[in-house]
Amino acid sequence: MYYTDKLLQYPVRVERPDPVFARALQQAIGGIEGEIRVCLQYFFQAWGARGPAKYRDLLLNTATEEIAHIEMLATAVALNLEKAPLSIKEDIAADAAGGSVLNGMDMRHVLSTGLAALPTDANGVPFDTSHVYASGNLAADMLANVTAEATGRMLATKLYNMTEDPGMKDMLSYLIARDTYHQQQFLAVIEELGGLDANLPIPNSFPQEAEATEFSYTQLGFNRDGTPPPAGRWSEGPSLDGKGEYSQRPMEPLGGEPMLAPPRPGGGAQAQQMRGVAEGDGVLGKAAHAVKEALRE
Amino acid sequence: MYYTDKLLQYPVRVERPDPVFARALQQAIGGIEGEIRVCLQYFFQAWGARGPAKYRDLLLNTATEEIAHIEMLATAVALNLEKAPLSIKEDIAADAAGGSVLNGMDMRHVLSTGLAALPTDANGVPFDTSHVYASGNLAADMLANVTAEATGRMLATKLYNMTEDPGMKDMLSYLIARDTYHQQQFLAVIEELGGLDANLPIPNSFPQEAEATEFSYTQLGFNRDGTPPPAGRWSEGPSLDGKGEYSQRPMEPLGGEPMLAPPRPGGGAQAQQMRGVAEGDGVLGKAAHAVKEALRE
Amino acid sequence: MYYTDKLLQYPVRVERPDPVFARALQQAIGGIEGEIRVCLQYFFQAWGARGPAKYRDLLLNTATEEIAHIEMLATAVALNLEKAPLSIKEDIAADAAGGSVLNGMDMRHVLSTGLAALPTDANGVPFDTSHVYASGNLAADMLANVTAEATGRMLATKLYNMTEDPGMKDMLSYLIARDTYHQQQFLAVIEELGGLDANLPIPNSFPQEAEATEFSYTQLGFNRDGTPPPAGRWSEGPSLDGKGEYSQRPMEPLGGEPMLAPPRPGGGAQAQQMRGVAEGDGVLGKAAHAVKEALRE
Amino acid sequence: MYYTDKLLQYPVRVERPDPVFARALQQAIGGIEGEIRVCLQYFFQAWGARGPAKYRDLLLNTATEEIAHIEMLATAVALNLEKAPLSIKEDIAADAAGGSVLNGMDMRHVLSTGLAALPTDANGVPFDTSHVYASGNLAADMLANVTAEATGRMLATKLYNMTEDPGMKDMLSYLIARDTYHQQQFLAVIEELGGLDANLPIPNSFPQEAEATEFSYTQLGFNRDGTPPPAGRWSEGPSLDGKGEYSQRPMEPLGGEPMLAPPRPGGGAQAQQMRGVAEGDGVLGKAAHAVKEALRE
Amino acid sequence: MYYTDKLLQYPVRVERPDPVFARALQQAIGGIEGEIRVCLQYFFQAWGARGPAKYRDLLLNTATEEIAHIEMLATAVALNLEKAPLSIKEDIAADAAGGSVLNGMDMRHVLSTGLAALPTDANGVPFDTSHVYASGNLAADMLANVTAEATGRMLATKLYNMTEDPGMKDMLSYLIARDTYHQQQFLAVIEELGGLDANLPIPNSFPQEAEATEFSYTQLGFNRDGTPPPAGRWSEGPSLDGKGEYSQRPMEPLGGEPMLAPPRPGGGAQAQQMRGVAEGDGVLGKAAHAVKEALRE
Amino acid sequence: MYYTDKLLQYPVRVERPDPVFARALQQAIGGIEGEIRVCLQYFFQAWGARGPAKYRDLLLNTATEEIAHIEMLATAVALNLEKAPLSIKEDIAADAAGGSVLNGMDMRHVLSTGLAALPTDANGVPFDTSHVYASGNLAADMLANVTAEATGRMLATKLYNMTEDPGMKDMLSYLIARDTYHQQQFLAVIEELGGLDANLPIPNSFPQEAEATEFSYTQLGFNRDGTPPPAGRWSEGPSLDGKGEYSQRPMEPLGGEPMLAPPRPGGGAQAQQMRGVAEGDGVLGKAAHAVKEALRE
Repeated sequence: MYYTDKLLQYPVRVERPDPVFARALQQAIGGIEGEIRVCLQYFFQAWGARGPAKYRDLLLNTATEEIAHIEMLATAVALNLEKAPLSIKEDIAADAAGGSVLNGMDMRHVLSTGLAALPTDANGVPFDTSHVYASGNLAADMLANVTAEATGRMLATKLYNMTEDPGMKDMLSYLIARDTYHQQQFLAVIEELGGLDANLPIPNSFPQEAEATEFSYTQLGFNRDGTPPPAGRWSEGPSLDGKGEYSQRPMEPLGGEPMLAPPRPGGGAQAQQMRGVAEGDGVLGKAAHAVKEALRE
Repeated sequence: MYYTDKLLQYPVRVERPDPVFARALQQAIGGIEGEIRVCLQYFFQAWGARGPAKYRDLLLNTATEEIAHIEMLATAVALNLEKAPLSIKEDIAADAAGGSVLNGMDMRHVLSTGLAALPTDANGVPFDTSHVYASGNLAADMLANVTAEATGRMLATKLYNMTEDPGMKDMLSYLIARDTYHQQQFLAVIEELGGLDANLPIPNSFPQEAEATEFSYTQLGFNRDGTPPPAGRWSEGPSLDGKGEYSQRPMEPLGGEPMLAPPRPGGGAQAQQMRGVAEGDGVLGKAAHAVKEALRE
Repeated sequence: MYYTDKLLQYPVRVERPDPVFARALQQAIGGIEGEIRVCLQYFFQAWGARGPAKYRDLLLNTATEEIAHIEMLATAVALNLEKAPLSIKEDIAADAAGGSVLNGMDMRHVLSTGLAALPTDANGVPFDTSHVYASGNLAADMLANVTAEATGRMLATKLYNMTEDPGMKDMLSYLIARDTYHQQQFLAVIEELGGLDANLPIPNSFPQEAEATEFSYTQLGFNRDGTPPPAGRWSEGPSLDGKGEYSQRPMEPLGGEPMLAPPRPGGGAQAQQMRGVAEGDGVLGKAAHAVKEALRE
Repeated sequence: MYYTDKLLQYPVRVERPDPVFARALQQAIGGIEGEIRVCLQYFFQAWGARGPAKYRDLLLNTATEEIAHIEMLATAVALNLEKAPLSIKEDIAADAAGGSVLNGMDMRHVLSTGLAALPTDANGVPFDTSHVYASGNLAADMLANVTAEATGRMLATKLYNMTEDPGMKDMLSYLIARDTYHQQQFLAVIEELGGLDANLPIPNSFPQEAEATEFSYTQLGFNRDGTPPPAGRWSEGPSLDGKGEYSQRPMEPLGGEPMLAPPRPGGGAQAQQMRGVAEGDGVLGKAAHAVKEALRE
Repeated sequence: MYYTDKLLQYPVRVERPDPVFARALQQAIGGIEGEIRVCLQYFFQAWGARGPAKYRDLLLNTATEEIAHIEMLATAVALNLEKAPLSIKEDIAADAAGGSVLNGMDMRHVLSTGLAALPTDANGVPFDTSHVYASGNLAADMLANVTAEATGRMLATKLYNMTEDPGMKDMLSYLIARDTYHQQQFLAVIEELGGLDANLPIPNSFPQEAEATEFSYTQLGFNRDGTPPPAGRWSEGPSLDGKGEYSQRPMEPLGGEPMLAPPRPGGGAQAQQMRGVAEGDGVLGKAAHAVKEALRE
Repeated sequence: MYYTDKLLQYPVRVERPDPVFARALQQAIGGIEGEIRVCLQYFFQAWGARGPAKYRDLLLNTATEEIAHIEMLATAVALNLEKAPLSIKEDIAADAAGGSVLNGMDMRHVLSTGLAALPTDANGVPFDTSHVYASGNLAADMLANVTAEATGRMLATKLYNMTEDPGMKDMLSYLIARDTYHQQQFLAVIEELGGLDANLPIPNSFPQEAEATEFSYTQLGFNRDGTPPPAGRWSEGPSLDGKGEYSQRPMEPLGGEPMLAPPRPGGGAQAQQMRGVAEGDGVLGKAAHAVKEALRE
């Protein structure tokens, strides 16, 4: 269960409202790198957590923080929109060096809201929850979370660089710090689980001898001319999980040509396909005719 | 540029076609854990790669392999559909212990294709390319790739466990092995870049003193009663990036209540909102009336 | 800012786990009638609220409750999946009167999660945030909320009727009660704002004389033969907002045929279109030829 | 069945074509507040209507009108695009006070159409039919329709305010009037069904004693410190449906901590999770090792 | 403008309601091969039509027919759902040879509607209007329409084959006939425009000498080993548009390796990327360190 | 299986980077007219191909080429972004005649990538694979492919017209040529199958006497006043498939009013609907009350 105190986690100030920057901030709300995503991701990981309860609690704790981050950003968007032009006339009147504001802002901030945030990205694309990665595997989910916090922090630093507004820079410096910590936090879970290597390959509960181990530590090359793919840490030496030795070889196909049965009657194919007409046959029209005649009988 | 030899990377055999398993396999084609996703993800990372060219080449090489994986799975779906029922009559006639096949299969395998694979997941939801994570940050992208290979391997092991068909088990054991390697491969890139710690926090090119460092290594607690959040590797001791010391504290709000300006005329709010009616005012109808009167004048 | 105590708002018990019912419950999580939707809707309405603060606080309070509802339902899904078949063999072994469980359950509950809830609807379609209605107009938003609670309660009653499990019936009886209250709550806001009539037409801050008032209280009929459309409270008597008199008439078109300019060169049309070829012209091929010749010169 | 006369319901004139305003108009075509939505919503409500036929006929009649509204708006978009720049050169040449036109217009109006409307919103996001609310419950559907007409009217008034073009203002004044009427119309249906109160709670056909009535008229508070949520018409006095008395109390959790079973073998979790490792265990790596060893035997 | 007479275009009878077939029928309503799609496609082509008015009128006429087709199918879905199980108990009681009905039907037919059609496909995926192909080029649009009618007819014949219900077969035989005609109709437009050849390449208004004509009639081969791609009508002899001669050759790359600039400071890349570290460098960690140091100064 | 040589199919040069043109180019990558679409479409058609193998090989060959086209366009986007503004300050400093660059570019090119291509369209909408038309019917699929190449070529010519950059014009002239050839190629397949007429109606394997042939070659008119629809090649003379004679007639409804059963108890309707209240009944509230009373007993 959840509670609120109606206060912001950190101050949100905007000195010079900028509706175009409001559009940029939307990416941090409803973008795939944004806060709705991590909030729901951590909640669904927590609500489906099986195994030691402390990790569920950690996820719940972090998810709860993320609501406050959406809140901060939504407030920042609304404050940046305070003086947004409601009409083309207003827009032109206010036009300055930066060009028309209506051109660059998200028009739906005027048309669909009362100058407030939308749960969409910087292009107005709504967030969709297929981005909630919650696989039930603790190591995979922790990696997904570190990834999410990495793209989140990247986005926040770009927003920081984009604006000159001291209030916005201050708010973003806080969100960047939290993204730093959350990267550290989710990696520390893996550390506590024995370190990344002990968790490989994910999932580590599948009996590895059931996989085609000949191909488990080998870099296959797909260069047309058979030259080797780029060498590196991944192509020689002991594997990171300590269970194999990296190697490298060009790939040659091990399977033949796929052979599907011809189309079945009633399956909606053309008559010509069903005849399985031989290549080079110049009279396919006749074939079609014949099949159709046969169908009629 | 790309080339083909029309052969399968690894043999694809189906001994007992099973249209319901064909539906399950779809998740590995068009699901978020599937092969279309990793294929496009590695391609877009490669095509946008800035920095050392070897990583671009590695990504290109892997992306090219993934096309062959989609191909294998699409072939497996088609082979599992060879005897799928085209009609309710056929379905009932073939009914056995497992219940109606039409109930459990993806009907679009009959209705929308010629008994072949769709670029959708096990529920028929199309893949959408917002799942292509290609941030331009090498470390973030490598983590995203390990995550993708982890969920991919998890999915493949579940499919392996679900079926009894030896051909399918063989094909999946190969795909599982490749997912093992690709986890190792992308982690080895990070290793070569100095190891995960040297890459933190991602992005590591942002001057960290610009962030609110007081909050960069601190676990904040959001328990209602102020009790500490779950302790662990993430709450004490040196941070994983070696730049800080983990700590822990309950969060108290640092920002006040958000204050937005009242709605502007012409912005589509109700008259009652625009009056900024004081709380407790029992005569809001009058307020609305007054504002509307004023608008008329 | 938000807090948690890790406890459920109301007990969630499942006596006989049923993976098919787990699929049905998904509609209440990620469906358009579901709890993610109302949760985000109330949050975005609150975070963008302009006008009297009490309504913002009311929305925040209700949104905070809705998180706990998603949590209850996600827990219910996980509990219903406790014994879900992981393989076709297991499925067949467990087969009873109800037919194959794998046929009827959401396969992604096995394939994509660790037997836990997804943020999707009963067909596996992810929730997308375009369903968050937060217009910034208090009356419109309250109506949207009552509608959401009405479809939510409808869904919950259908789930109640669908299951025989006493634990699930108990949980649903609670959610149904909350949907009852929330309908009452949001309508009471409108009551406090002077009642529905005083708020019409929404938005009531637009000067109504600027609309084409001749058509503001008139039911127009679109029956082919000019017979009147169905009469009722909406076709005669005083209008509900007390500002007009309902009437009724068949619609006759007031505008002519739309006239668009011909395609411009360079705009990608066919040459034949650009010539504006007269109807009945039997030699359109020549026209195309001529235009193309001209383009070449 | 349906018929056309190829004429516009109301004149559509554009005096000064404005491609940026064409983008804004798209919201009224393919936005969630737009005409495709209401058109399909009323049609699906009508085609699935069960109960008195007059309401089906009313919905059919209104849906048929809405096609003409999409038509008007699509015509308006095409007319606003008549002189849109097809190239960057043309764009710069025409540049005036308002900044680059290509910057602010929907580029797909040039790239994907012949300077005509798209079935998308102002950000180019396609309409998706999940927004068609057709629950089969007459009262819920009428409320959904009033809500749709309210957001539709809000949008139309904002478009009216945004433009200076007299032709566009005239067209919008007509659409605004129709939105006024349709709000009145759908509320009048509820009036005829006994008024809103008689229809509560929706659905009113569920036996209310089966719900947890203790919570049906009570505002629960989720303030962290237990202070009451905002009071109002919804917290004391008789409930709007006349069946209860409003009250208010802080919420305390009634359910305990959710307890899910540990992950099952073969379900894709990490070995560490399956061991159910106790908190504080510093040697989780060993645990993982042990489980994996066991799996191998 | 549009009108209705509330009658069905053709009788819709269901003798033995079948909720699973109702799900199949959904594909013809909200699937990409379905009637909502063609209806909106023809409308948007008509409303944006530039050039001879008769083609706009033809499109309007056909679009108007398609509304009646959605109506027929929606009615068919509702009739097939008349006895659908509302509960698991009811479902089990009615269980017959075909297995559980709830397993195979679209649960949202119970949960989200009053046993009526949804604007979704057979998997419950909503229709989205990005499938409305309306390019403004008459020939391209006619081909898109023939394609749509071809997939539509294919789907209708599969539904015809799937069911044994005489009423449903009768309705489908009518829809199949209309799909036959509409294929003929849209091809006849092309015929009237001078035939398909005269319209090639589409768009035929682009001056063809501006294209790289060396590659305009040549089949390029992408076989890994340089063997020719499959020969046929497309690889030798005069081209279908009469303007070239087909030929064939293996493709060799004409462009070099793509060279992107290194990442810019402030763009969110890793420090290691920005250094442009040479391949083979084993001390990348140092590089990262150095760049970060530099950033701090 | 697939191979790469890491080279571009054709040179990609950008002389004057233009971030706004980069946005336009996105339509050719991730738009419905774009290269991801045709690439996946041809692959899925190939992988599901049943019938003569040469057509599968042809599709594979073409799909393999299309990867190289996405690659060229992705490279073009990245090159156009080389000097894109990373901040508002930079943007204003660079401001020239064309107005603010940030206004007109896709902000996600800065925020979500390292100045590189996204798999989205010109409005930032992700590509979704429902656009992969692969019906299993050879003729339908060939038409779908010609259509795709037609809209693709149209888009490429518009991009050609939009830019002044010689490098971009050169690249586009190549892509336009390939679109010319691919139109020719897919039509030649139909030619080889006996010509378009021999393939009609699609699918031609359905016994045509099972359709309602009375309506197979008749243009039905939906003008309100019964006047005939526009005449043309499609309304008289022999049909294009040589099996019928075109005719024309106004449509009159052949089916009656649809009659659905009243709502069932437990199905979530309002009590008023379930009573089937007669029209004109002024006391519907009582009806609702009565039904609810009955439910309680």
